[in-house]
This record gives sequence, C-alpha cells and structure tokens, in this order.
Amino acid sequence: MPPELARLGHVALETPDLDGSLSFFSDVVGFEEVEREGDTSYLRAVDEFDHHSIALTEAEESGVDHIGWQTVDSESLSAFAERLEGEGIDVTWVEAGEELGQGEAIRFSTPTGHEFEFYHEMEKPDPPAERRSKLKNKTYSRTTTNPIAPRRIDHTQLWDTDAAGFAEWLQEALGFTVQEQYDRTDGSRWGTFLTACGNKIEAAVIDDEEAGNDPALHHIAYKVDTADDLFDAHDAMNEHGIPTDGIGQHSISRGKFLYVRDPVSGHRIEFNAGGYLVFDPNWEPIAWTEDDLEDRQWIGQIKSKERVNY
Amino acid sequence: MPPELARLGHVALETPDLDGSLSFFSDVVGFEEVEREGDTSYLRAVDEFDHHSIALTEAEESGVDHIGWQTVDSESLSAFAERLEGEGIDVTWVEAGEELGQGEAIRFSTPTGHEFEFYHEMEKPDPPAERRSKLKNKTYSRTTTNPIAPRRIDHTQLWDTDAAGFAEWLQEALGFTVQEQYDRTDGSRWGTFLTACGNKIEAAVIDDEEAGNDPALHHIAYKVDTADDLFDAHDAMNEHGIPTDGIGQHSISRGKFLYVRDPVSGHRIEFNAGGYLVFDPNWEPIAWTEDDLEDRQWIGQIKSKERVNY
Amino acid sequence: MPPELARLGHVALETPDLDGSLSFFSDVVGFEEVEREGDTSYLRAVDEFDHHSIALTEAEESGVDHIGWQTVDSESLSAFAERLEGEGIDVTWVEAGEELGQGEAIRFSTPTGHEFEFYHEMEKPDPPAERRSKLKNKTYSRTTTNPIAPRRIDHTQLWDTDAAGFAEWLQEALGFTVQEQYDRTDGSRWGTFLTACGNKIEAAVIDDEEAGNDPALHHIAYKVDTADDLFDAHDAMNEHGIPTDGIGQHSISRGKFLYVRDPVSGHRIEFNAGGYLVFDPNWEPIAWTEDDLEDRQWIGQIKSKERVNY
Amino acid sequence: MPPELARLGHVALETPDLDGSLSFFSDVVGFEEVEREGDTSYLRAVDEFDHHSIALTEAEESGVDHIGWQTVDSESLSAFAERLEGEGIDVTWVEAGEELGQGEAIRFSTPTGHEFEFYHEMEKPDPPAERRSKLKNKTYSRTTTNPIAPRRIDHTQLWDTDAAGFAEWLQEALGFTVQEQYDRTDGSRWGTFLTACGNKIEAAVIDDEEAGNDPALHHIAYKVDTADDLFDAHDAMNEHGIPTDGIGQHSISRGKFLYVRDPVSGHRIEFNAGGYLVFDPNWEPIAWTEDDLEDRQWIGQIKSKERVNY
Repeated sequence: MPPELARLGHVALETPDLDGSLSFFSDVVGFEEVEREGDTSYLRAVDEFDHHSIALTEAEESGVDHIGWQTVDSESLSAFAERLEGEGIDVTWVEAGEELGQGEAIRFSTPTGHEFEFYHEMEKPDPPAERRSKLKNKTYSRTTTNPIAPRRIDHTQLWDTDAAGFAEWLQEALGFTVQEQYDRTDGSRWGTFLTACGNKIEAAVIDDEEAGNDPALHHIAYKVDTADDLFDAHDAMNEHGIPTDGIGQHSISRGKFLYVRDPVSGHRIEFNAGGYLVFDPNWEPIAWTEDDLEDRQWIGQIKSKERVNY
Repeated sequence: MPPELARLGHVALETPDLDGSLSFFSDVVGFEEVEREGDTSYLRAVDEFDHHSIALTEAEESGVDHIGWQTVDSESLSAFAERLEGEGIDVTWVEAGEELGQGEAIRFSTPTGHEFEFYHEMEKPDPPAERRSKLKNKTYSRTTTNPIAPRRIDHTQLWDTDAAGFAEWLQEALGFTVQEQYDRTDGSRWGTFLTACGNKIEAAVIDDEEAGNDPALHHIAYKVDTADDLFDAHDAMNEHGIPTDGIGQHSISRGKFLYVRDPVSGHRIEFNAGGYLVFDPNWEPIAWTEDDLEDRQWIGQIKSKERVNY
Repeated sequence: MPPELARLGHVALETPDLDGSLSFFSDVVGFEEVEREGDTSYLRAVDEFDHHSIALTEAEESGVDHIGWQTVDSESLSAFAERLEGEGIDVTWVEAGEELGQGEAIRFSTPTGHEFEFYHEMEKPDPPAERRSKLKNKTYSRTTTNPIAPRRIDHTQLWDTDAAGFAEWLQEALGFTVQEQYDRTDGSRWGTFLTACGNKIEAAVIDDEEAGNDPALHHIAYKVDTADDLFDAHDAMNEHGIPTDGIGQHSISRGKFLYVRDPVSGHRIEFNAGGYLVFDPNWEPIAWTEDDLEDRQWIGQIKSKERVNY
Repeated sequence: MPPELARLGHVALETPDLDGSLSFFSDVVGFEEVEREGDTSYLRAVDEFDHHSIALTEAEESGVDHIGWQTVDSESLSAFAERLEGEGIDVTWVEAGEELGQGEAIRFSTPTGHEFEFYHEMEKPDPPAERRSKLKNKTYSRTTTNPIAPRRIDHTQLWDTDAAGFAEWLQEALGFTVQEQYDRTDGSRWGTFLTACGNKIEAAVIDDEEAGNDPALHHIAYKVDTADDLFDAHDAMNEHGIPTDGIGQHSISRGKFLYVRDPVSGHRIEFNAGGYLVFDPNWEPIAWTEDDLEDRQWIGQIKSKERVNY
C-alpha cells in the first residue's frame, strides 16, 4: 500500500521571547500548556486530545521550524522517506520523544523550502484532575477556561512564489487532494486549497508575489463555534491592546474569520467559524476564477499581509 | 406626582455558609464580588454598572432578607412610605450606606410577608483596573471571566398561597403593571407576571398550593445571550457536580431557561435567554388560560419545586 | 404633567418605485405587509405587535416623510402641540386613520428640518390565521418566514450640519435624554445618541460635514439575535446581488452591525445584534472623546456615507 | 486492497402517504425535493451536494427499505458482494439509475435483518437557477428556505435485540470502527457507536429489550448549527401542531438534540447540534460504563421510544 497522510497535526513555531509569546497563546488566546521542556512549550486547544498542536520554541528570531502531519500508519513513515529520498530530498529521522509526546518522525524540506514533519504516534495525555472534563469524550472542562479559547486546529496557510508548483508537488509526492482552487483571469493559479484528511482544507497554498519573501507561513487557523465567538475574540484582543487583522467571511471554504498576530513573534492565528465538511470520496475541486466574484472575501477583509518566513 | 418604581434592582439573600455560597455564585456562576463587609458580600453580574444586584449574608439558615426595587426619584421614597403607612404597613428607614453602595431606603413587608426594599441612589463603582473594559459603556472586560458568567439581573419569582391577592396589591399599592397572566380552567389565577420598568417581567407571582410554605422566593433570573449559553451553564454545573433543574423554554415570556440551585443555600438561579421586550405604553396583558396550551412550558420542564422561605 | 414621549414607533419613507422597494423590504429582508392603501404599504417586523413600523409610499423621488414617535398618553399630543407652537413651530394635526392603524397625530418640522410625527394610539392587528403564532405573546409564526427577517425596530440615525444644536433641542423641547455622546479632540460634538424610551438609543444625531446635504436620514436599524444573523443577512443580500455596506461592531452602543441599502430607494437598513439596555433612572451619558479609541468602530467599518434627504 | 466504506449516504424510507410525509419533510422541516419518480420522492438537505440523502416511497405501511452507504471506490462493490456471499448472505445487484441519481449498487440484509445498500456513484445535480447559491461551494441559496432547514445527514440509530452481535458484525464484515460504546453495570453492551467515515458516529447500534420489535430504525439525524436552531425547530413543530420528543444533550457524542416524528409515517428525525469530530487514525473508542454518569443524557431526555421496523 502506498504511504498515506491522515491529517494536519501540529505546527512548531519559533519566537524570540517564549514567555512573551506564551502570554499571548496561553493567557490571551486560551491554549493549554501540556508540558514544557527547555526552551519549548507544548500547547493544545481545549477540545484536542493529542499532546500538542503547537510547539513554541525560543529562538534568535521568529520562524517556522516545521509543520507536522500525521500518517495513517507507522509504515507510511519509511515509505514516504524512501519516496522522498528517491526524489533527491534529504530526509532526517527524529527519535521518538525528541518532540515531547510524539513517536519517531521524519523531517524534510519541500522543494519550496517549507519544512515538514511526518509522524504517526502521538500521546493523548490526561489533563490535571481539576481541569479534566467529566465527559469521557472531552478533554478539558471549560469551567475555568478563557472565554475565547478556540476548539481545535483547522488549517495552515503557506505562501510561496511558486505556489502552483508547490500545490502540484503536494499532490504528486505526498498524496494531498484539492478541495478548492482559485485562478486569476489570466489563467494563473492564485491559490490551491488542499487536504490530507479529505474532510476540510488543511493546507492553503497561496501565490506570493513578492520574491525573496518565501517560503512563508501566513497563518494557522483554529475552529470556534459561532460568529459571536469571532467578535468575542476581537473583544479580548482589544481589551489586551492587541490589534486584529479584520473580520469577515471567505468565499473559499465559507469560513468566517478573525485574524490576529502574536505581538511578540508575529505569528498569525485565524479564529475560524462555519465552513463546510466533505465526506464524499468523489469530491470534485471547487474551481473558482477571478470572474466568479468581485472579491475573494464574501464579506470583510484581511488588513495585513505580514507573514513569517521559515 | 405619585411615587413610581423604576425597576428591579437587587436581592438580599441569606446563606448558612457565606464562603460556600460564594464559591457557587462567584467561582462557579461568575458573579463579580464588588465589596465585602462583615458577613455580607456584594456581587454584580459582568454587564451591570450598579454596585450590586445580589447581597449575600451569612445567617442561621437560608432565607430572603429583601428584594430591592429602585424608585424613579428620591421623592418617591417618602411618598411610598406615606402611602404604605396609610395602609397600616410598618415602614423602616434604612440609612444611606447601611447597605453598601446604596442611598437611603425604606423597608417593609408586603401583606403576604415578602420583605421589600425601595431605594433610589446606587453607586456605580469602577472595577479594578485589570478587570475594567476599554469600552466606556461596559463594566468588566470578559478576558478572564468565567465563560458562563450571566449578563444582568432579569426577574424574580415569588410564591404565595394568596398570589392573586398579592398581584392585585402590587398593582394598586406599588404601581406594578401586568405583562402576562395565566388562569386555570376553573378561572383561578395561577400566575401574574408583573413589571415595574414596563419593559420586561420583573416579578412573577405564582400560586403556592402548599399552605404554610409561604412567603417564598422560587428563583432569581439572570440574562445570558443564547441557548448555547444555557447548555454551557449546564456543562459548568455538571463539571462541578452540581445538578441542574431542567432546560427548556417558557410559553409565558418566551424565555429559554436553565435552572440551578446553590448547593449550600438552596437559592435558585435561572439562566435566561431570548424572550421579548415591551416598549409600548398601551400594552395589554397577555392573558393565557389553561386551555391555550397543553403545558405551561413551550418545551422542557423544571424538575424541582423547592423554594426558599423568607 | 409635562408631555412625554414613549418610544420610536415608525418611519414613513418615500420611494420612486413602491413595488421595487417592496421587493427589497418584504421579499428580501422579510418585513410583513400588514396593509396597503393607494400608494402606501404598511410593514412591520416579525416580532412587532403594532400595525406598522415602516410606511412606504411611492413618490417622485426617495425621501423621508416623517419619523413617528409614540407619546405616553393622548394628552401629550396637545401639550406637545402647544409647546411647539409656543416656539413658533407650525404643527399640523393628522386625523385618526389617515395613516392606517394609527390614532390622531401631530406633525411638525424640527428646527433642523427633520419632519416628526407624534401619535399615541396604534392598532395591533392580528396576522392572517396561517401566519399567526400559537404563542399569545408573539405575532407571527416564523414557519414560513424568510430566515433573515429582523425582529423589531431599534433606532434611527439622523444627520445634520447642526447636529449639536439639534441634539440640544431634542432634549429641551421634546424631553429626549442622552445615553452616549462622542466629542472630537477639538471639543466639537460629532454625535449624540438619544433615547425617548430610556432603555436604548433611538435617535443617533450625527454631525454632517457636507453643508446643503441636510436634513438627512442615514439609516433605520432593526434588531436581530446574533452575529451569525448578520452574516446570514449578508448572504441573502449577496445572493440577491445587493451589495452591503460593511460588517462590524460600534464602540458606541456596542451594537454589531450589517448595513445594506434598498437598491431602488437608497434607504439604508442596519441589521443590529448585541448592545446593551439601560434600566437605570440615574443613567449618566457615556461621554466618549476622540482620544478614547483609535476608531469609532470597535471593529469593522461602514463603507458608504450616502444618506437620504428629507 | 480490501473493500472499504466511505460514509453514510442516504436512507430509503417507506410511508403510507407520500404527500402527507412530504408535507412534513419538505414544507415543515425544509428538505429540498430534487426529483420525483412514480411513488418515490428524492430529497436532500440544504447543504448537501449529492442527489439525495432521503428517498421516500409510498407503501402499504411505514417501513425502512434500506440504509445506503457509499464505498470509497467502485471496486469495493464487487469485493463486498463476494465477501458477503462468502458468509452466506444473499446479495442483490441494483442497476445504475434504478434509484435515481445513483450508480450501480448492491443490497443485502445484515444478519439482524437491517437492509443495507452499498453504492459508489451519486450525481450532484445543480438546483434550479433561482435556488442556486452564488457560492460555488454551496448548493442552495437559503434566501427562500424554511428557517429551520437542517444542513446535512449525520447519523442513523438502529435497534436490535442482538445489538452487540450486530456491532461486532459491522466491524468484522463491513469494516466499521467504534467511536464510542456504552456498557451496563452487568457488563452487557447497551450501545455501540460506529463510523464508516472515521470522523463522526454514523451508525448507533442500540440494544432493543423488546424481542420481536426488531430490526428497527429509531431515527436519522441531521446537523443544524446551534442550540437556538433546536429551539427554532421546536417552535416550528409546535406552530404546526406536531409534538416533539424532547430537547437536551447526549453524553455520548456530546450532540445536542431535538427529536420529532413525521406524524404520517412515524419516522423520527433528530436535529443535532454540536458534538465533536475525529481526525485521529489512532482513535481509541470512548468506553462508557453505566457507572460513569447518572444518566446517559448529559441533560434533557427523549420522551418516546417508538421506532419503525424494517
């Protein structure tokens, strides 16, 4: 059987000030710190079972260490390694436990320079007793949680000056499929919205028109329940003196959004509500062209384009 | 000008264990303690400007000290006092500041024995800087608030074996008006739903069929935003091991409800969402009869009838 | 007793194409046509009891015939008439029934030229049996209603080059009170947010910097339940090919908004969610200055300034 | 490769009165009729792309013709057929188009007597132009839709006196996996909650204690967005004079529910909000025992147990 990805699992981000960034990710946004080791803090959202969906490490400057994808089985790790090495890509094996809570893994750079990690095993640690839900199908009790705490990781958005090539490669080499895509009137591809799990967009690959700025991560998105949660998240940011990057709804994916950046590291989080899920094995990519709509946003706008380079 | 009430202002409740009850009202439900003096804690909801809407005092046993109503002006206090004394009701004057944050007041027992307080002045203290909202029209920032914290006091429900007479007296002596009413098939009045402010039910007066159990307070209600907030409140209670008293929607008032009782004092809070507001000076009472609907609840039920006596 | 206003009741708007505007107000937005007579259609929102909150009349061009305010009693009509005539303002009496469903009324122009109507009596007609709710405290069953249909009239926004003087006059001559106000850094008043009912802003009076453009109506606002309803309203407009004027949240009033204009008449409706209510007789106006916030909107923006002149 | 199921696709139900049942499913609940042929109506929910998720056929009496499951590929059909025949189960092939919009299929009875259909191809017809959304990733514009119209099919609940054996067989013969399960204190299995897609419960298999009543379908569930949508659905039912079967939240699956039965056929629909999704390939079944919670419902109750036999 060919190797296969199961889903987007986590992002490993670098910040010049771990405590400062934790103040944003943990105190302001409401992620739960599961464990800390050395200069790395492991965080998960309140409705996640896995050990972490964000690893935050102190470094010289802001950056992206890797984006972590879970494979459907352990065998897929070596099979992917073999396939990638066959393409001339260097693959590094990471021992189990080097990233806390995680089994053995492989790391490599995509042809565009985006660092990826593939792993299969991830622990599901119980929260401390006083934070644990009485519902066995829920991780944290929300009784003392920050009101805006997002639910679970949803997707990442990656920018590159060869986004079209990157999207092709993700399909051919890694088996991603396309859920939606957007072409400019001149026929060039602006964005490809890919999925590993098959149910929702997990990697939005966007054409970066500013050469030299790539490879970059524009944002990671986490799910919240309703549009009022987006306004509540904006409230919290305003109260903390943190500017936000706009509220609205994407046409692509139908996701309602609020963007905000960690003031310390510049990493951007999207709070995302609504959207739709795909369960159809015969899904045909939704093919948008610039002529379909006056604006890529159904309503509202994203106010800044800053992104964090690898 | 005749004296006039402006609105329901606060309830003063007694509990056999102040710290125990505060653990419920403050930690679990999310009221903010504004001030404490001696055996009394003054609490307000996160979207209230006044000094308090609950005063909680330690006493031998659970009870209701009084329900506080604000008058439209200071002159109404002495005018109401005069009118009540003219009816042979004893009126006690309370000095400004005896109840913290409050101006001078009168207290008296209704003919049914429900203790009321009328006052006009109430301070609007700022919250501590770290809890204060940057919105000048909002009291608390909700950045660190309990997710279920209700917004503002809405109404009280009072039980008595002479509820019909009590409702009559509230209209004639105190100027309440009727927003809705419910009569049994035999023509007897089950409940009268009165308002002082004119916009929403503030005193639901219910026929208590168990003689000797009156006068009693069945519950105080606080507003939340949506039905999901009711489920969230139930979640929080379940996680704290506190049973709730049912979820549903009243036909009368159209309010969606979740009831829960302080495990220590037995005082019951209704989390209330939805409903409607009256702005019409010519409002005619909505007159329900037992034949209008199969059940007084539009859906759901209240599971217990316990109430706290005065 | 001095005459007194009870609340904002309705707006009487003119459109160059009644059928075209009804297609917007009724089919797209979801107002219910209660009655039509000649060139005038009387509409109400799905959660209103009164005969109408909008009267829409075909005329040469778009315009505002009047804004209707209900008085607390019938006596206030002649008392207001006397007071206004004492100020040299012409007052016209309107016979009962001339505006369908309404009792006798007075009409006059404010010193700024905004036409107002005062009335006390308004019928509360039952809807047709198949549209009537089984809940006696609700007008329409929503079983066949447009999903975005707003609930009830909330406020109007009026522009004038002498907005500060207008606001003063509304207080002194008509008894409005101020709920919030906003001053520029130079001390000049940008907006005064007044109320007749005392519970919520009903007339926002805004400084119009373009002389000759006044008196004007910027928008009328109707309440919806949640922020998702704002997105749903935008959806409906987009599907109908009607552009919207932006989504966001005001700092003043805390109202979340979506603006949209009738493509035929240019009249603008605000769908409004959230906000807060005042029940306090001692309310002190919230006094904003330009220095309090970087932007008058808490988030988002209104994209157009068009307004309809009287 | 072994044959594999992709997801729950549709249910084919029988009713003694097609027009009567359509009045419920289409007019009251808000399903869209995609096509009708002979005595069968094909319906889909407003946010579904497939030709239908319900086929409703007039028959002597209410019943379940089959539950339709989509396979991941066409090859899985014959592979499943071979496997089932190897177990001594009769498999009938159904020609493409016999069920409108659908490719060729196999039908068979499970050992418990529940009729299943497996198919791979299903058309995705466009709605009529006036109902079509301008969003290419959305089927219907909701501009004229019933306000309570549910979004998409979620799961089915099947009852049998050998539910434990049925659940075992679904895993072994058909490849279902277990998301949650519930055991009584005596160790016997009350319910197994299985998934074909891997993301959410699609077949809840419940122990029927009344012999002779099986095989049966207890309900089909459709997703709505919020708890307020559940109350809105109840509103609509009450206004139509259709009793509902209770509101609340399941502990298992965390789904908030409102149940209602078609008055004509007795088929029960669950409106379902909330819950959680699984994307983890290493998911371990959530194993509840009767001792974990006092009640299987987190709050609320289901008021009737009627179910429709095959």
